[in-house]
Formats: sequence, C-alpha cells, structure tokens
Amino acid sequence: MAVGLDAPSHVLPVTGLRLGVTAAGVRYAGRRDLTLLVLEPGTTTVAAFTRNRFRAAPVLVAEEHLQRSAPRALIVNTGNANAGTGEAGLATARASCAAVAEALGIAAEAVLPFSTGVIGEPVDLAGKIAAALPACLADLAEDRWLSAAAAIMTTDTVPKAVSRQVDLGGTRVTITGMAKGSGMIRPDLATMLAFIATDAPVAHALLRTALDAALARSFNRITVDGDTSTNDACVLMATGTLAIPPLESADDPRYGPFLEALVAVMQILAQAIVRDGEGASKFIPITVRGGRDPEECLQVAYRLAHSPLVKTAFFASDPNWGRLLAAIGAAGVDDLDVARVQVWLGDLAIVRDGARHPDYREEQGKAVMAQAEIPIEVDLGRGEAAQTIWTCDLSYDYVRINADYRS
Amino acid sequence: MAVGLDAPSHVLPVTGLRLGVTAAGVRYAGRRDLTLLVLEPGTTTVAAFTRNRFRAAPVLVAEEHLQRSAPRALIVNTGNANAGTGEAGLATARASCAAVAEALGIAAEAVLPFSTGVIGEPVDLAGKIAAALPACLADLAEDRWLSAAAAIMTTDTVPKAVSRQVDLGGTRVTITGMAKGSGMIRPDLATMLAFIATDAPVAHALLRTALDAALARSFNRITVDGDTSTNDACVLMATGTLAIPPLESADDPRYGPFLEALVAVMQILAQAIVRDGEGASKFIPITVRGGRDPEECLQVAYRLAHSPLVKTAFFASDPNWGRLLAAIGAAGVDDLDVARVQVWLGDLAIVRDGARHPDYREEQGKAVMAQAEIPIEVDLGRGEAAQTIWTCDLSYDYVRINADYRS
Repeated sequence: MAVGLDAPSHVLPVTGLRLGVTAAGVRYAGRRDLTLLVLEPGTTTVAAFTRNRFRAAPVLVAEEHLQRSAPRALIVNTGNANAGTGEAGLATARASCAAVAEALGIAAEAVLPFSTGVIGEPVDLAGKIAAALPACLADLAEDRWLSAAAAIMTTDTVPKAVSRQVDLGGTRVTITGMAKGSGMIRPDLATMLAFIATDAPVAHALLRTALDAALARSFNRITVDGDTSTNDACVLMATGTLAIPPLESADDPRYGPFLEALVAVMQILAQAIVRDGEGASKFIPITVRGGRDPEECLQVAYRLAHSPLVKTAFFASDPNWGRLLAAIGAAGVDDLDVARVQVWLGDLAIVRDGARHPDYREEQGKAVMAQAEIPIEVDLGRGEAAQTIWTCDLSYDYVRINADYRS
Repeated sequence: MAVGLDAPSHVLPVTGLRLGVTAAGVRYAGRRDLTLLVLEPGTTTVAAFTRNRFRAAPVLVAEEHLQRSAPRALIVNTGNANAGTGEAGLATARASCAAVAEALGIAAEAVLPFSTGVIGEPVDLAGKIAAALPACLADLAEDRWLSAAAAIMTTDTVPKAVSRQVDLGGTRVTITGMAKGSGMIRPDLATMLAFIATDAPVAHALLRTALDAALARSFNRITVDGDTSTNDACVLMATGTLAIPPLESADDPRYGPFLEALVAVMQILAQAIVRDGEGASKFIPITVRGGRDPEECLQVAYRLAHSPLVKTAFFASDPNWGRLLAAIGAAGVDDLDVARVQVWLGDLAIVRDGARHPDYREEQGKAVMAQAEIPIEVDLGRGEAAQTIWTCDLSYDYVRINADYRS
C-alpha cells in the first residue's frame, strides 16, 4: 500500500518523444514489460548511473553509447536486470540495441538499453526484444507516458509519472517524467530508473548541470532500505521542439525557473518511489539542520533512515524517541554535544537539549505517529547547514516481499 | 528462536567474585531484574563502553568511578536503560551506587552501575534498588552466574554464559563470562552488557590490552541490526585469588594462552548474542579476504551484514546471490575490480570472477541456504587482509519484536 500516492491519471506529452509498450515475455508471459522511447533528431540527452561497482551490462553499454553518440532511442525492459551476467549479458545488451537500431534505421550506438528486475539470471534479452519490436513500434505515440510508467514497474504497486509546465520568456515549457523503484533503493547518483523529458532546447553542458543539481535535491536524497542497485539510471532528455532560443547558460534568467520545475518533477517522482517503498506504511521526511556542513547533516539523516529500530517504531506508530536519540548518537559525528540536540516529530517538540522535552506527553507522540506522513526534524545545534531526505518505515510486508519474491 | 544455542547448564565460579539476584520491580513486578556483583579487594577491573554519543547515565557514572577507584561492586538492572534521562538519570545512577556502597561499607565510587532496557523513560532506580538490596545481598554466592545471566536479559530468549580453563605455568586458570543483548546490536567498542572474570592476577595495563585485543575478535565483530546502543558495556575483572605470579607483560609466555582463552569466552558470548538476535533464524559468519587492509574487509562484511535484502534472502533460504554482489559493489571500495571477486556460500562456489560460477546450480544453493548456519566467504582479489564478523537474518519476528515491544 503506497502512502498518499495515487496512480497518475494524466500527464502531458513532450513533443519530439514517442513511447511504445508491449509484452515481450521477459519473465512473465502476457505482462507488458518492454518500453521503447524514440527521440527526434536534435534531442539533447544526459544521464546519471549507479555508483555500485557491480554495474549491470545495460548500464555499461548505455554509458558507452552515450559518450559516442546522441541517443535516438531508449529500450527498457523489466523482469530481468541483466546484472551479474558477465560477457553474455554484455552481448545480449548490445544485440538488443542493434535490433532496435535496425528497426528504426539508426546506428546501434544511438540506442541506450535499460533493464530492471532479478539480478544474476542469464536471459536472451535480444531475442525477446527482437520478436516484440514490431508490436512496440506499432504502439509508438507521444501520449503513451502512462502505459510506459506502468510497463517499467517491478515490485512497484503504483505507476509514477508527473508533468509540470513553466513559463520561460512567454513560452510554456513542458517537463514530464516517469520513474520506477520500490526496493534496493538508496540511490547513489540516480535511482532505479527515471526518464524525464522537456520540449525546451537546452545545451548539453547546461542540461548536465541541471540534472546534477536536481538529483542532489531528489533521487539522491531518498532511501527505502539503504541498498544501492546495480542498475540505477536517471535520464534527462531535451527534445528542443519548442521554437525558443536555447538555454545555454546558468546565467540565463530562464534557467532558474526551468531548474525549479525540473526539481519539482524529480522530487515528486523520487518521493513517489519512497511512498511506494516495499511494504511502506509511513512516509517520513527527515530534516537535519544546525550541522557544521551538509555532509554531517546527511550522515545523521541516513543513520536515522537506515536504523531498523527507528523504522520498525514508525511502523508500530510507537513514539519511541529513545531510538531516535540512539541513532543520532551513533551517526559518527564524533564531537556531537548531545546537550544541544533538539528533535521534533511534525510540530511536536519531543527532545530538548538532549533529553525528553519537559512538556512532551506520550499521547501527543502517539497522535503524530498515527499519521501516514511523519516529518522528523533534528537540530544538531552546531552550525548553519541543513539537509532533507525522504524514507519510509520497515514493516512485515517489507520482509514478506523480499523473502517471497526473487527480485 | 535462537540458532544453535542452548541455555548453559553449568559454568565455573571465579573465586573472589560473588553474585546476587533479586526482583526489584524496575519494569515488571516479580521479574528478577537486579544483579549485584561483589569483588574481593585487590581485584583489577577494566571496561569498554559504547561510542554512541548519547551515553546513558550509568555509562557516564561507571566511567567516572572507574577512573577514580578500583571497583568493589557492580549493580546491574534490566527493564530500564536510564538513557536520555538527563540530570535526573545521572542523580538516580549516583544514588544507586551510594545505596550499594552503604550496604557493603565501601565508597560510592567503588560501585559501577549498569542499566539495560527501554530508553528515555524516567525511573527512580535508586529507590527500587535500595528496597531490593537486602534480598540481593542475601543471595550473594560465587555460584550464581547462571541466575545472573538470566536476570540481565531483556529481549534475549536464552541466557548467555560460558567458562574456559587454561593451564598457565602449571596452574589452572578460570575465565567465566556472561552477556546479554538481542537487538540494537552493532557494538562499537563493546556490546550491550558483558561481564567476564578470571581468578588470575593480571596487571591493570595488561588487562586493558587483553580486553581491547579480545574485543576486536569478538563483540566488535558482531551485528544484528546495525544499531549501536547507548548502554553498551563490557567489563573484565581479574580477582587475582590464584596464588601465581601476576601476569604483567605481553612478553610473559603465559599471556598468549590466557588471551586465547579470553578470546574463546568472548567469541562464544558474542556469537551467542547473534544466535539469539531478535527474530534470528539463521546464523551467518561473514569472512572477507583478499582485501588491501582490514578496514575495507570490514566495510564489505558490514555492508553485507546490514543489507536488508541480503538478510531477508537468508530468512527466505533464497540463494539470491545477485543481492550479495549488489551489496559488495555498494560497499564503497571505489576501485574494486568486480571481475576479481569470488563468493562462496559454505563450501559452495557461487560467484567466480564477478559472475555466476559456471558449475553453480540453484539446487546446490538452496541446499546450503536451508542450513541454520551459513558461512559467507568473499575474496576481493586485491590483497592479503582478512576479517570475519557474525550476523543473523532479518525475519518477520524482528519486525514483530520491535514493533510490539517498547525496548
């Protein structure tokens, strides 16, 4: 049960980008598991990939192709991550690109492959993709975002897609994105899979700058279980079909509003992944402020977000603030003066100067913990830095999903 | 259900150390929750405490007393950790020591307090302890280790105590220890609570050296859930009642055998904590070798041990080796060459050169995963360092215990 997250009913197409979906039988027969994105010539594309040292074959191939050529197509399968599959995995990823390239009459290097699903199972992706391509091509249209958002899911319970429009110098620019991901979520550069597109023309270097800036405020600030996937990828595409002067510099007064709209899209998608985190019953934004630098704020925030005792207390709606203190104290901020630490649950002050707030009453804590969304705020009392991340609780269902499902 | 762990039926007393147990009603009426240890004059005592920045009141008082005086008594309660309790907590910890001191006719500084249980609940420990002391004193005897090991438990399902004897220059030396701990276990210097005693005379500096060396091979190499407690403490006492020349230097030929016997006692207790880890159904020793230094071996080992996806796969007896690879790759060894990584489950080679071993068959993996004890061995293929840690799986019961119980 996703927390406060409904399936999107409508997103805006981005001109210059068509999507097609079909069932290729990668893992389950009849399941729509293959998505093709086709980009108009002239599209600018940038991407970020997982920092896991075990990078899946499609990640390696996508990085290589991205360095050599401007992408014209993305081929995305669910059901098998093609990770830990050695040379055979690389070969089938390359052959998948070649099959798509042949069908579209473009170079194989202009195709980026993406895979998600079970790790370490050999799979003939290229064969399945080649067989399913005609159906995928027949489905191609600019308004297929919602079916694509559903087709890239694995253990997700809700498709994730969103649009924002922003006025840039009198022209309405569209940004639309979709993402998938539910477990093995502690992105390190990017998340499981996210694809975001805009019709604005944006220069390559500036698009890269915008992606990095937005990642640091979205996908790189979420965690479900602290596990970083082998297949994380986040792709940002600018088709440039709008007839406006291209965005080329961060000094362009239009860049600020563009970036904020991009951040909004990416934050909504990133938070949707946490809201739909495996077994999640609570959505928990964690803000740590009063740190000497952003790094120590993140250190404390992630320690809280990864503590099984904190996560199970939230699942139980138990205002067990002692577990919060224990996690803060164990975060590795060596010279932390605990007598300056303050903690709030929502608006409720629960810890003052390192001990239980004198006005705090257990009933108040229980009332906040009963909510589906529970912000934690920590003040370390030692500086001006602040950081926010988003996480969820740890429930029976997390264990069930990951014990039952070979993901 | 503890994994391969029976309640001890017999341990050897250590002359010079008496123990007494009673029910003080700290949290539950009628539960034996108070333990008193009384040491003969001349006993040498060293201790290690949690590195959590939120140190419980008894930890602060015990450290202070240990610096000022040679301990003559330890008072241990379960049911309330007296942590996050501010000035009132410090006052009641000090008053507890004063009450014990008065009853025994010793200085308050010669008493060390230890508490375990719920964090952040105010408690009048001194009052409860003063009222229960007469019964505790009446119970004092050298052969009360087993009832003490039961009285210090919280969510433990099995008491943990063990003895070893070692021949030092023709004299049989005894080492007996007990420990408690089940959740919030990722000791950083020491574990929840562990008390170890020997009748050998050992100089203070050497006893400290021995404790540190043994910790690095026992309590500092276990993790249940990655959470470091506010109350961790490990105390090593040498009563010196044996009439042999004191151990004073690491060059003494008797020191090696003494240390190995101490390590054996502490490893058995540390492993017992993991075997009795909250909800544990599998006991998992993790050895990482082929590292450039011990730190990176530990980094990879703890990443595996803390990965919820790895832990739930073990709970499910699912040989999902892709999750092992993903965790190894995410451990932060930046220049790891994954093509040199080998992984074994028990004696079964599952990963060769970074991909599935060609001879590996799923049935073999399932057979190993069905065992209650499953050693993981990883070779990083880049150096000579090796480290071993011990952990357990993540089960429904872990969530149930920590969602139901205010620990």
